[in-house]
Amino acid sequence: MKVKMKPGERLDDLQIKGYKIIQEPGRFCFGMDAVLLSAFAVVRPQEEVLDLGTGTGILPILLAAKTEGKSFTGLELQEESADMARRSVLYNGLEERIRIRKGDIKEASSLFGKDAFSVIVTNPPYMIDSHGLKNEKEALWIARHEACCTLKDILRESGKLLRQKGRFYMVHRPFRLPEILAEMIQAGIEPKRMRLVQPEQGKEPNLVLLEGMKGGRPRMTVEPTLVVYREDGSHTEEILRIYGKETEGE
Amino acid sequence: MKVKMKPGERLDDLQIKGYKIIQEPGRFCFGMDAVLLSAFAVVRPQEEVLDLGTGTGILPILLAAKTEGKSFTGLELQEESADMARRSVLYNGLEERIRIRKGDIKEASSLFGKDAFSVIVTNPPYMIDSHGLKNEKEALWIARHEACCTLKDILRESGKLLRQKGRFYMVHRPFRLPEILAEMIQAGIEPKRMRLVQPEQGKEPNLVLLEGMKGGRPRMTVEPTLVVYREDGSHTEEILRIYGKETEGE
Repeated sequence: MKVKMKPGERLDDLQIKGYKIIQEPGRFCFGMDAVLLSAFAVVRPQEEVLDLGTGTGILPILLAAKTEGKSFTGLELQEESADMARRSVLYNGLEERIRIRKGDIKEASSLFGKDAFSVIVTNPPYMIDSHGLKNEKEALWIARHEACCTLKDILRESGKLLRQKGRFYMVHRPFRLPEILAEMIQAGIEPKRMRLVQPEQGKEPNLVLLEGMKGGRPRMTVEPTLVVYREDGSHTEEILRIYGKETEGE
Repeated sequence: MKVKMKPGERLDDLQIKGYKIIQEPGRFCFGMDAVLLSAFAVVRPQEEVLDLGTGTGILPILLAAKTEGKSFTGLELQEESADMARRSVLYNGLEERIRIRKGDIKEASSLFGKDAFSVIVTNPPYMIDSHGLKNEKEALWIARHEACCTLKDILRESGKLLRQKGRFYMVHRPFRLPEILAEMIQAGIEPKRMRLVQPEQGKEPNLVLLEGMKGGRPRMTVEPTLVVYREDGSHTEEILRIYGKETEGE
């Protein structure tokens, strides 16, 4: 399917099933966090998945490639990002499995109704509104900072949107872990699985992957810390496997 | 100082400053968790430290050896353990810096008063009352299970016992992390530092070290995951350094 590109946009190869994604350098481009989250999240055949703050649609596209989920809904506040995501969906011929909705995470449960999804994934803004430099472009600022919705908003809405025993997957920064886990519990989404991601052995973790279950029983499996680079600067076997799965285009 | 040993007891060398500890195999003997906690905890000169559930007094003795803290108070419910701890303190000539009190953690803030300590350390029972096998000896059961006090009791009392900006150090099991962090926040002890401990690279962490601060601001440093063994079964450099410090007897 031929889709129209806009000035400044480029088409990046996702190295899985020949899928591509429209991105605009200068706006938000997906990173390793989205790829790691797509590998960490479990989506079973026929499950219905929601991505809160989908941006250019990277998570729905990767999850559609990797899993047999029935449907993937991407909710995005910024119209330009939502438009890029829609065109990427068309480009990849995924319009029967992925739909992109423009809308506000804070109102997600009124948009979609309660108990509407089996799985929620989210790669939310990491920074509290007051953190970091404010001289970024607005689109980038909104993608990175809790300017338009907070962690609490995301968890409150997820608690409503998920079916009982439905699963919640998020990637975030470790420095906010106490708040994240406390808010998950408060939203009725019990933390069940966690994995830290470290750039190297002996370096501080800079990402945390989390799985929660609505109405789950308290007991969290903490997985071995994922190390990205070896001492010699090459990727570790596990990272190669996560990315390799994709280059193989199963 | 010569102290009386009871039948079944043995005197174990702590490999630091010539200190020894009286233990009874069959009752609770200290493990790597206590050593790691004593290396993770920061005690500044002249600080007053409380150990909640001190057992045979391993934490006060190690911290007295490693730091310039002014005083170390060990609170212990079981009279036999408290008695062993007292005799170890005498053996090492530490009676001016360490005192052992028999008493209940649940009533610690009435025993010692509010805002009484700068630092609290604790290596509490890891298991919820209903976890695990019940065919252990009673003393061991009490040391390992929340039979006599819960995580919530420990944090509530610590929140009262600590001075403003006082620090709380705990070693625990990672599977209870969500509950631990949520309870810390609720007790007014903000989680500030965390470190997972993994037996080997690629193996699930089996311990977590935590630092909290009474009245601290939310933001937690997650330190690099500590790996205990190399692939060839030898200890990693960092573990050797943690133990090595002790063999050097600074």
